[in-house]
Amino acid sequence: MSKKIQSYTAAKQEGILLNANESSENLDDDIIAEIQEAMPTIAFNRYPSETEHELEAAYAKAKGIDADQVMAGNGSDQMLGFLIGRYLGKGKTLYTYSLDFSMFDYYASTYEADVFKYEINEDGSFDIDDFIQTGKQRPVDLVVFSNPNNPTGHVLKVDEVKKIVEGFAPIPVIVDEAYMEFSSHSMLHEVENFENLFVTRTLSKAYQLAACRLGFLVTSKKKIPELRSSFVPYALNSVSRKIGTIVLNHAERFEGKIAETKAERDQMYDAIKDFQSFRFYPSAANFIYGRCDHKPELLALFEQAGIVIRNYDSPAFRLSIGSSAENQMVLHVLEEYERRFGK
Amino acid sequence: MSKKIQSYTAAKQEGILLNANESSENLDDDIIAEIQEAMPTIAFNRYPSETEHELEAAYAKAKGIDADQVMAGNGSDQMLGFLIGRYLGKGKTLYTYSLDFSMFDYYASTYEADVFKYEINEDGSFDIDDFIQTGKQRPVDLVVFSNPNNPTGHVLKVDEVKKIVEGFAPIPVIVDEAYMEFSSHSMLHEVENFENLFVTRTLSKAYQLAACRLGFLVTSKKKIPELRSSFVPYALNSVSRKIGTIVLNHAERFEGKIAETKAERDQMYDAIKDFQSFRFYPSAANFIYGRCDHKPELLALFEQAGIVIRNYDSPAFRLSIGSSAENQMVLHVLEEYERRFGK
Repeated sequence: MSKKIQSYTAAKQEGILLNANESSENLDDDIIAEIQEAMPTIAFNRYPSETEHELEAAYAKAKGIDADQVMAGNGSDQMLGFLIGRYLGKGKTLYTYSLDFSMFDYYASTYEADVFKYEINEDGSFDIDDFIQTGKQRPVDLVVFSNPNNPTGHVLKVDEVKKIVEGFAPIPVIVDEAYMEFSSHSMLHEVENFENLFVTRTLSKAYQLAACRLGFLVTSKKKIPELRSSFVPYALNSVSRKIGTIVLNHAERFEGKIAETKAERDQMYDAIKDFQSFRFYPSAANFIYGRCDHKPELLALFEQAGIVIRNYDSPAFRLSIGSSAENQMVLHVLEEYERRFGK
Repeated sequence: MSKKIQSYTAAKQEGILLNANESSENLDDDIIAEIQEAMPTIAFNRYPSETEHELEAAYAKAKGIDADQVMAGNGSDQMLGFLIGRYLGKGKTLYTYSLDFSMFDYYASTYEADVFKYEINEDGSFDIDDFIQTGKQRPVDLVVFSNPNNPTGHVLKVDEVKKIVEGFAPIPVIVDEAYMEFSSHSMLHEVENFENLFVTRTLSKAYQLAACRLGFLVTSKKKIPELRSSFVPYALNSVSRKIGTIVLNHAERFEGKIAETKAERDQMYDAIKDFQSFRFYPSAANFIYGRCDHKPELLALFEQAGIVIRNYDSPAFRLSIGSSAENQMVLHVLEEYERRFGK
């Protein structure tokens, strides 16, 4: 008999796609030309090199960390799955929040681990001390949460994260920083200070590279060799490696789009935060999370506008920040809903 | 505490590489040009589509099967890991051979499953009835083996594999056919006839595409939808998908190289099979497996010639079939060893 593994519904990909927190723009033409030029340099017949770390070095350089602190994989998903598989199994417990990234549950279920979820506030905030105390009242084997939080957009400050990491030591704590380029409270520079800290990152969001499935695990140099030796061989294909390296060699070019996304997000929030028919929350990511009472009507309006959003089984939904034009279309939908249901 | 996960040493990648059963030739220039032309068509900012199955359709067309019988993943490794994770966990048992592909042990260890190995003969042959009876004497939850066998090169005929699949029904049986293009006993066309049959395939060997990490799981149409729903989302990046599709659209171009590799393999075997200082075995794959009594001396000769081979912790070793020139160099090394240690 097969195990009960949680299923996961991937994002729809037709219409105006504001459901998966992707960038609204493809890579620029110069970078794509550079990718084309690189293709004849690839030995397609050979397995990816396990000893050449050009991609890890490019990531480290872009982030001001050390290449020996970095492991690359097939999306940050794979790095999360790897750590969950490493520390959990039958009879072990993963501690996380509700709501948080649904892949945590998926991976825990594949390794038959239990998941214990701490209920955070609607806006993603919570009492740090209570979170730690509640977790420590039971035998927890691994702690994981996203920061900024997906889906609320709430961000914990470095001191708050440090408190959690210290509070659970020596139990490993993974901070999934998939959206941290849109905020400023990264733990990347703290990995040598906490033996139990693991940070996951991605190129799928700020670096506009979701197609290539490139993620990183960042932790102390000391731990990397042993992690590498138990990581699946040839996890990451050579072509994604090459493309990721090219993109990261131009990391500074993405700063403009990141700043624009943050500005669009803040403008959007300012425009909608006082709407009567919704509750919206401040976001430190490239999306805005909201709640409303007439979800079917909201979903119908979005569908009519050809806009795909992320819906949850609750009054909640999540809107990726798209291009300026796309965000205007979103605003019109929200305004229309507000006209119908606002006081 | 972390789990004890088996480590895996990836292939060396300097010198004349005859250790990983890769093709000795890169893709041809026309295909690489087509890959270059395809790059601007990729939406790098978007996650891979989960509903578009162009790659699966191209594979099905190349193999004369149905696209609805195919799931693609990040190397056949991922498909093996997926099935092992699906059917095994703590207290469950994987049944396989010794020797066989080392990744079976790796994945079983990540899911804390036990592995029970049937000892096959030195040349890879074994008594099919005894294999089935021995396996059925204990509670076995999943059966897996490679055909042709890696590392011996021995191939089971379709009727022999059918007997195993039937013998273990309803326990799932995975046949890893990574090397089947170099032989002719595939179970691809049998998947609708056996409810418990899973076949894994790869583009890393005959299709010269190890860099892209492209593998397939082929099983009955009926089972695919449920398998998809529990498979990790976005497993396979868009660029590998596109490149795999291009390669498979030219599947016929690989026939020449496959025929050449088989001819080179058979010539090599004929040239060395009567050597006194070795035992070599007939191979249905793109490698030859051998044994000798003075391994350190053999390894020193290969190293001196700049040739990297696959060594095992036993008298055994494995030689990938390379280009004609590379195979001549291998032959010279084996002849030199024979001069020293043959009677």
